[in-house]
Amino acid sequence: MIGCLAIVGVGLLGGSVAKAARAQGLAHEIVGIGRDVGRLHAALKDGTLDRVTTAIGDGVKDADLIVLGTPVGVIERQLPEVWQAAAPSAVITDVGSTKAAIVAAAHRLATKRPLTFVGSHPMAGSEQSGYGVARADLFRGATVIVTPTDTSEPRAVKTVTAFWESLGAGRVVMLDPETHDRAVAAISHLPHLVACALVDAVERFDPAAFDVAARGFKDTTRIAAGDVDMWEAIFLANRTAVIHATAAAQAALAELVRLVERGDRDGLRAALTRIKARRERLP
Amino acid sequence: MIGCLAIVGVGLLGGSVAKAARAQGLAHEIVGIGRDVGRLHAALKDGTLDRVTTAIGDGVKDADLIVLGTPVGVIERQLPEVWQAAAPSAVITDVGSTKAAIVAAAHRLATKRPLTFVGSHPMAGSEQSGYGVARADLFRGATVIVTPTDTSEPRAVKTVTAFWESLGAGRVVMLDPETHDRAVAAISHLPHLVACALVDAVERFDPAAFDVAARGFKDTTRIAAGDVDMWEAIFLANRTAVIHATAAAQAALAELVRLVERGDRDGLRAALTRIKARRERLP
Repeated sequence: MIGCLAIVGVGLLGGSVAKAARAQGLAHEIVGIGRDVGRLHAALKDGTLDRVTTAIGDGVKDADLIVLGTPVGVIERQLPEVWQAAAPSAVITDVGSTKAAIVAAAHRLATKRPLTFVGSHPMAGSEQSGYGVARADLFRGATVIVTPTDTSEPRAVKTVTAFWESLGAGRVVMLDPETHDRAVAAISHLPHLVACALVDAVERFDPAAFDVAARGFKDTTRIAAGDVDMWEAIFLANRTAVIHATAAAQAALAELVRLVERGDRDGLRAALTRIKARRERLP
Repeated sequence: MIGCLAIVGVGLLGGSVAKAARAQGLAHEIVGIGRDVGRLHAALKDGTLDRVTTAIGDGVKDADLIVLGTPVGVIERQLPEVWQAAAPSAVITDVGSTKAAIVAAAHRLATKRPLTFVGSHPMAGSEQSGYGVARADLFRGATVIVTPTDTSEPRAVKTVTAFWESLGAGRVVMLDPETHDRAVAAISHLPHLVACALVDAVERFDPAAFDVAARGFKDTTRIAAGDVDMWEAIFLANRTAVIHATAAAQAALAELVRLVERGDRDGLRAALTRIKARRERLP
């Protein structure tokens, strides 16, 4: 049971954390911090939040657990203010889709004032954004990656892990921040960039074809409708891993189309068989 | 009402045509033709088919409507035998995912014996295959592309269109065979090749990342688990359009990753905004 839970950024993820914590009765008080008090009002009115403020310092100062739910680039910018205001015993975590830069920023701040930060990345979301689509069951069954480092207090790692499990996570996986960033470049950031490229390719190659697009195309490109601010920040924050993962995709696509070009039936069949088997092994 | 409906190839698509026709009471008799009578037995036993045979000639000779439901490459090879055995008044259609080669083959046969062929492509399917996953409602609400040519009899085009509407199609779209092949290269064959490349890219770049793959990755790569025989045949049958569509995707992906590489925040935001808007305009 948390005394005071403070959530900075009450959009899809932050709002869902608040709703899930409320539904599970995890905190005595839930405070929401955002730029626009008008937008926070909905969460106050529906009973998800107990208190709202636009001032980070005021919002986090009494919190036992602080969750940073703003976009990746913003989390890094807000961290110094959170650090300054937080209570000595507070545990700080976030929901950002990249971890190395955020964890490094927290590490730098901790050399001046020892506070506890453990990065998190719940692998849940939607192509929609904002508090309007936040759901108490967003994390139900989801994988959450927690990224402790050598200097992380085991007690704080346990607190953050238990928090996600209480919100409904199906599995909490520990990865170091760099391993995390590389993994999500592969299975999240690259697919997003590729889905965008697919939509753009149809626009360039045969825009009339959009009219006959069926379920396959819609599934494959659904994520291309994701929030622009969030994805722009993610791509730039995880630039190196995204570039390398994209190079792997370009090589894989070039190899497949070369088999088609050559009419290499056996080679194409072997590649498709191998890839299908790999895809079917996914949990 | 059709007197005799013959279906060559009783897998996912052919089987679903049979089941839907049976459910709607569209034909007095439904005949199934396949290589292996043992496999056809299930459809006979569950009442979907009235008669089964491994001999194409025997199966199609009394049919008023013949539906070719085998993979793309096989349809072309079977067409001469179907042509020889079919009754003069029969209407022949197919469910192949590429149309130019099949329609051209039918056109060549028609110069020797005038018979009526109108190509079809129901935009419905599954990453699974075989009669076991056939469903009476597979075409419910689906788009079906019908590909008449200058020489197609309007009466036959009407018969085929009405047939798909009776099976539940939400919309029947007319395209000439070449326009069809270009459009499906863009919105079906390219996404399939790209989904395969994505799975392969993760395998090359960071295979451990498969373990944390979430809904976005699964949606984007679901089609990579499609039937190998079917997709190999499709890629090779539609080789030219697939190569050109892939080149468009490679250019689009290269442009996006260049913006990431340069850290061009404004350029990346503009591209993602444009692509998101385009994706959201999909019906």
